[in-house]
Amino acid sequence: MVPNFKEKLEEYAHLLVEVGLNIQPGQMVNLAAPVECAPLARLCAQVALDRGAKDVIMDWRDDFIVRERYLKADSQVFEEFPHYLKEKYEWLVQEGCTALSIIGSDPEMLRGVDSTRIQTWQRVQGENTRVWHDSLSANRFQWSIGAHPTKAWAEKVFPDKKGEEAIDALWEAIFSVCRITGDGKAVERWRDHVDATARRAKLLNEYNFKTLHYTNSLGTDLTITLPDNHVWMGGSEDTPRGVEFVANMPTEEIFTAPRWDGVNGRVYAAMPLALNGNLVKNFYMDFENGKIVNVHAEEGEEYLRHSVGMDEGSSYLGEVALVPYDSPIRNSGILFYNTLFDENASCHLAFGSAYPNCVKGGEDLDEAGQKAVGLNQSMNHVDFMVGTKDLSIVGTTQDGKEIPVFVDGNFAF
Amino acid sequence: MVPNFKEKLEEYAHLLVEVGLNIQPGQMVNLAAPVECAPLARLCAQVALDRGAKDVIMDWRDDFIVRERYLKADSQVFEEFPHYLKEKYEWLVQEGCTALSIIGSDPEMLRGVDSTRIQTWQRVQGENTRVWHDSLSANRFQWSIGAHPTKAWAEKVFPDKKGEEAIDALWEAIFSVCRITGDGKAVERWRDHVDATARRAKLLNEYNFKTLHYTNSLGTDLTITLPDNHVWMGGSEDTPRGVEFVANMPTEEIFTAPRWDGVNGRVYAAMPLALNGNLVKNFYMDFENGKIVNVHAEEGEEYLRHSVGMDEGSSYLGEVALVPYDSPIRNSGILFYNTLFDENASCHLAFGSAYPNCVKGGEDLDEAGQKAVGLNQSMNHVDFMVGTKDLSIVGTTQDGKEIPVFVDGNFAF
Repeated sequence: MVPNFKEKLEEYAHLLVEVGLNIQPGQMVNLAAPVECAPLARLCAQVALDRGAKDVIMDWRDDFIVRERYLKADSQVFEEFPHYLKEKYEWLVQEGCTALSIIGSDPEMLRGVDSTRIQTWQRVQGENTRVWHDSLSANRFQWSIGAHPTKAWAEKVFPDKKGEEAIDALWEAIFSVCRITGDGKAVERWRDHVDATARRAKLLNEYNFKTLHYTNSLGTDLTITLPDNHVWMGGSEDTPRGVEFVANMPTEEIFTAPRWDGVNGRVYAAMPLALNGNLVKNFYMDFENGKIVNVHAEEGEEYLRHSVGMDEGSSYLGEVALVPYDSPIRNSGILFYNTLFDENASCHLAFGSAYPNCVKGGEDLDEAGQKAVGLNQSMNHVDFMVGTKDLSIVGTTQDGKEIPVFVDGNFAF
Repeated sequence: MVPNFKEKLEEYAHLLVEVGLNIQPGQMVNLAAPVECAPLARLCAQVALDRGAKDVIMDWRDDFIVRERYLKADSQVFEEFPHYLKEKYEWLVQEGCTALSIIGSDPEMLRGVDSTRIQTWQRVQGENTRVWHDSLSANRFQWSIGAHPTKAWAEKVFPDKKGEEAIDALWEAIFSVCRITGDGKAVERWRDHVDATARRAKLLNEYNFKTLHYTNSLGTDLTITLPDNHVWMGGSEDTPRGVEFVANMPTEEIFTAPRWDGVNGRVYAAMPLALNGNLVKNFYMDFENGKIVNVHAEEGEEYLRHSVGMDEGSSYLGEVALVPYDSPIRNSGILFYNTLFDENASCHLAFGSAYPNCVKGGEDLDEAGQKAVGLNQSMNHVDFMVGTKDLSIVGTTQDGKEIPVFVDGNFAF
């Protein structure tokens, strides 16, 4: 048993609802969670209602049943999105609903499932819930993501432990990297961390780099052009009404968007990538004018090709994120098999959609307008890790001055 | 731990899907279950998909969150039914979707909740999901109900046991009254039981009684007129396409509809009634020309009045059901605090809606037509127990002959 588990779980719920979501009186919450994660979901619903939420709408799911459906249901059900569900997401947008997701999946849940079915459903779902996901990625309403161990996930992360023992170990790891000790001060600690991250993002914004040049001993040699008026973000974000929220819990990254057509060279992955439960290992990608023109992986290359080919925008970058090699998550030495954690262990890039607010005023532009200012458009968004102990990143300012941004895997300033 | 738990749970899932729902290839299943009941829900989804179900749509719920919402959410959310949900139920009807419900609630979940909120929501929900519930109660598609212990429920049934021990005890009781031993023959045993019940229903249909007269030492003295062309049903039912199914698992009852305007006299309850988690104890009701004109309870009378007054039809009877006093459930001596089980322990009546197919051709009539042939209309349906050890029921045939139906609490034939 995790010491002070009850107190820590309550602290986590408060952190997610008060700092992550920062729920305001009268707002609705769409709370998505696997059924195994009910203990945390219940506390989050309770804290949200105690803080005056108008309502909490539950969106439960279960990996076992999702897998059974993928394996055995009529293929037609993955090709058609029920109209009532489309209407649900439109209604959530109309209501200005906030979104809290508690994740806790079996990283291998989809192993062996026909990837055409998955791709079809992701496309159909993406198209039909676009208005909701666009609203969230434009930060129109607060959203946040936390995590809750499941047995399958915990046993994957701690292969030498079983059942409750593995779950407890994963809880300890999650509490630790979320700065939760059970002393009731996690909310304060988190505010301090968010402020420190914001100061560093401010400095990057002042440099206003034209390009970033990545090199390391793996062979990475990549130049990324940043859009005019790009914005580095980190720690917290704001809705148009000025409500501050923290989208990922935990978060260590400072990120912006690359110009979708301004990436050239080769980048090597620093860690394996889990795609729908399938691991892609030891891979690199080559870019020409932004487009991924070549991918190679020692293992799982077909899954990577599928994902990069999901739609037009999937073969262009949408995010560039900086994380010190000496981050709490990488220092923990744990591979979480989950992007929420693993992306905060390392500098990373994402192919697929850009966040509109990574360019000033981007959230007010339509799709074509966003693309014109450099923001990539896609229904996909896949983070992959590129940060190594010897990663160097050199920024070039608008007037040609070269400034070290990363030296030996950590911030130079 | 329950001996052979895994085998018994699988046997129960097969029983629910193969005998209860009798799923046909290409049919959809709407599977409603509390998140705590995931182990059985998963197996049922798996069996349904293995038997060729087109898809399984999960409808998860959680008592803790339902209660928190009732206590703290904006009252407006109970007054308005989201349009997308209305559309969902219309879509389920269009798709000819079958319905499997796994119940497992805290019998006191709603204790202390403002009953106006509950009544409002039940009315709003009832009105907006009417097309779905009407289709099910008319047996247009197969439906079935099973159960899965939850901690709160199990501790209520076995107040001297805690946690896992109480849950195990409730599992043993459920398996036992469902004739599940782990030998893999529950499906066969169930078919035999259904046949025996059907033979007794056939006999009652041949008598074609005009009235039933209930008396016992509690003071019950009630005459119930049965509609012309009434049908006694028991064991299994059939959809219009001729698919046989068993709506309740377990079931011991043989039931029909009374004429809504043909009930006179007084009936005493033989057991407490749980209404939204509030117990009503030692109550009686007086009827005049079908209408409940007086109710009295030693405890919880206000909850009974609320329910009887929910809508016009709530103050008339919709069901009359015969169960021998020597039924396995009453013999177990367990009060399950759940209608699925407790109604099979005793002869009972229900106020509120009648099942349309309890009169020949009733499922083809509209609301007014059903009422004209004697079938009560309501959004409510509440069973209450009237069977005692000394219950006597005398049937009078159309030509005035008196036939003993129940003597000393058991069937006379």
